[in-house]
Amino acid sequence: MRPTIDGNRVLSDLNALRAIGAYKTGVHKPTLSAEHIASLAWLETRMRDAGLEPVTDGIGNVLGRAPGTGRRLLAGSHLESQNHAGWLDGPLGVVYALEAARAINGSAAAGGAAVDVIAFCDEEGHFGHFLGSRSFIGGVSEADLDAAVDRTTGRTMRAALAAAGFAERPRLGVEKGRYAGYIEAHIEQGDNLESGGISIGVVTSIVGIWQFRIVIEGVQNHAGTTRMAIRRDAGVAAVRLLADLHDTFPAHIGPRTVWTVGRIALDPGAPSIIPGRAEILFQIRDDDLATLERLEGVLRDTAKAHAAKGPCSIVVEKLRGSLPARMSPAFQDAIERGVAEVCPGKSMRLPSGAGHDAQVLSTVMPAAMMFVPSIGGISHHWTENTSDADLVTGADVFAAACAHILAGR
Amino acid sequence: MRPTIDGNRVLSDLNALRAIGAYKTGVHKPTLSAEHIASLAWLETRMRDAGLEPVTDGIGNVLGRAPGTGRRLLAGSHLESQNHAGWLDGPLGVVYALEAARAINGSAAAGGAAVDVIAFCDEEGHFGHFLGSRSFIGGVSEADLDAAVDRTTGRTMRAALAAAGFAERPRLGVEKGRYAGYIEAHIEQGDNLESGGISIGVVTSIVGIWQFRIVIEGVQNHAGTTRMAIRRDAGVAAVRLLADLHDTFPAHIGPRTVWTVGRIALDPGAPSIIPGRAEILFQIRDDDLATLERLEGVLRDTAKAHAAKGPCSIVVEKLRGSLPARMSPAFQDAIERGVAEVCPGKSMRLPSGAGHDAQVLSTVMPAAMMFVPSIGGISHHWTENTSDADLVTGADVFAAACAHILAGR
Repeated sequence: MRPTIDGNRVLSDLNALRAIGAYKTGVHKPTLSAEHIASLAWLETRMRDAGLEPVTDGIGNVLGRAPGTGRRLLAGSHLESQNHAGWLDGPLGVVYALEAARAINGSAAAGGAAVDVIAFCDEEGHFGHFLGSRSFIGGVSEADLDAAVDRTTGRTMRAALAAAGFAERPRLGVEKGRYAGYIEAHIEQGDNLESGGISIGVVTSIVGIWQFRIVIEGVQNHAGTTRMAIRRDAGVAAVRLLADLHDTFPAHIGPRTVWTVGRIALDPGAPSIIPGRAEILFQIRDDDLATLERLEGVLRDTAKAHAAKGPCSIVVEKLRGSLPARMSPAFQDAIERGVAEVCPGKSMRLPSGAGHDAQVLSTVMPAAMMFVPSIGGISHHWTENTSDADLVTGADVFAAACAHILAGR
Repeated sequence: MRPTIDGNRVLSDLNALRAIGAYKTGVHKPTLSAEHIASLAWLETRMRDAGLEPVTDGIGNVLGRAPGTGRRLLAGSHLESQNHAGWLDGPLGVVYALEAARAINGSAAAGGAAVDVIAFCDEEGHFGHFLGSRSFIGGVSEADLDAAVDRTTGRTMRAALAAAGFAERPRLGVEKGRYAGYIEAHIEQGDNLESGGISIGVVTSIVGIWQFRIVIEGVQNHAGTTRMAIRRDAGVAAVRLLADLHDTFPAHIGPRTVWTVGRIALDPGAPSIIPGRAEILFQIRDDDLATLERLEGVLRDTAKAHAAKGPCSIVVEKLRGSLPARMSPAFQDAIERGVAEVCPGKSMRLPSGAGHDAQVLSTVMPAAMMFVPSIGGISHHWTENTSDADLVTGADVFAAACAHILAGR
């Protein structure tokens, strides 16, 4: 029997979280800000109301365990936001998990099986990369925590955890043998669902994100007195390399590859000084490892060819290389079963172009993600939104999917 | 009869100025810093020793007038430096002027003709563009002064002048009918003299500097979830426009045109965000007005063509457009006469690729500039240098040129 959710309760919970740290129609709720900490406290209360046993741990993760014994599914997302960003990115997945727990746990149909709810700290990466979920699977050392610093304010995570009263607490880990897997709902952050009139996205994989820094070294000199012929201008070299890469990449990409140059910094960056150094952030995302490897090759070969021609040296450094994460095929089928019950025919399978805690969890247990439509495909902006009807449909499908996974279907 | 200079005194004065605000082998002497103010006080003393009557005015210009009557030539440069820069850029011209005054003024050969010495404040543009020399020719209003702010520290020029004790003083202007003209010596800041084994550069003109800001507007979005096909990436548009401009310009430039992209700023400049805005500083220098106008046309036409193709808007804004300044042909001949006496055959005529106070003075009186070699062509860096032999030869030619100008030859 399909679990019965309360759509109004879902909307009311989402709006309660939006009211904490409201910014225009979105929120400003950086990791371990007063507003984020208040949201975690709110969640503990709602977990208790739902019959869960909440614990906030030493890195700001909040886990609400279902009492008793039986098959357990972990579900959740995160409560902090990007700076001045949207209200659904994170809270949606936590509230859906909470509603699934309320609809399933203790019900006769569940027969002792239950949903544990979790909010991972700092999915948005104010202090690092997926620190909360990586800590939960045992991937964050004390030294990693020592090194974590808020990229906006410069405050250390240690100081922020101490101010929140979390510093002395133990960090939670995955309880061995407890979980059938992990499931996370999220807004799509793209326009595939909306443009297709689709209610639910069944995520097939989460892309690998390969982040490179390209450093070009030339010779800094006076922009008035140095003839063009003898210049070694790192900015010109950067422009020529990037134009070449933008021309070359399309022949080598996969159907969903994206690549992005988010920053070009010329040093010293003054109007009358020939840049002696350029630093470029170059990012490639794909859900296929072979494609990522092929494109890294194209990047390195192109850079090498430009450096060989001169007049500047070019070094390509890989900063980050997360592997594409395959979502559990059985869990994808369970979500489709929920769709068949709630909004038949209104789903599509697609990869996630953004990173999520589910990719971290997928390294230790079966994992799944479910998307709801983003209006205009907008995300990481305070105008981010989803219609109330889509929000309720999503909660319904999510709870149904959780029930199917717990039933082993 | 050629004036007799004291080469050791020239080197000793230059080294005395280097000792005030020394940084490695160069100096760090921003406009109206303690070290700059101390250098102005040092200059007043040396002027008095030379029989000049010094006045420091309300914008930090120091003028040493020769007493008596007769034909007067104004000579000088500036004493502040760029941040962490070289020891000769500025002080060379002031010390040469001082030495010329010491060698000429009151001598029988001069017959009452004399050199006035000046150090203009802020030629290096910490607070603005040529504020000292522009004030001296009447081109800086009180409102301009109100608006002047140190680009490194954010301190207002008013506050800096008050701290120096200059705020209440009147500002000096050009005394009507006093000057035959203005002459300034400077290091070349390029490698034309050094690579040709030449001692003296006779400056034919000072380039016009046309500074543009190019603003490209696209749409900021998530670097993972936004497909390549629907992106409006301002950074990609910037790279394509600049690559095109670097390819197109060579067919339209003059023999000595230089153009420089000193800054490319992508907004917001984060690794995982598609830049919604790019701002580019694009500078063109040439000593020929028609060439500058032609290249501005190429810049604007190319930007318009790229904007028309889309997907981003492009606006080209002219921030600054100084006219090329022709140096006095008679004064150029006077410098050549000095060369013939001191180091025959060791001169070349060339334009100045850098801006100097002489271009400001040239709008109200005949003006000239003389260059000495820069080792390795280096300038605006603490390693900037010139050999002692070249420094003494330069002082000798400069004094001889001043004598010829004062004699009306």
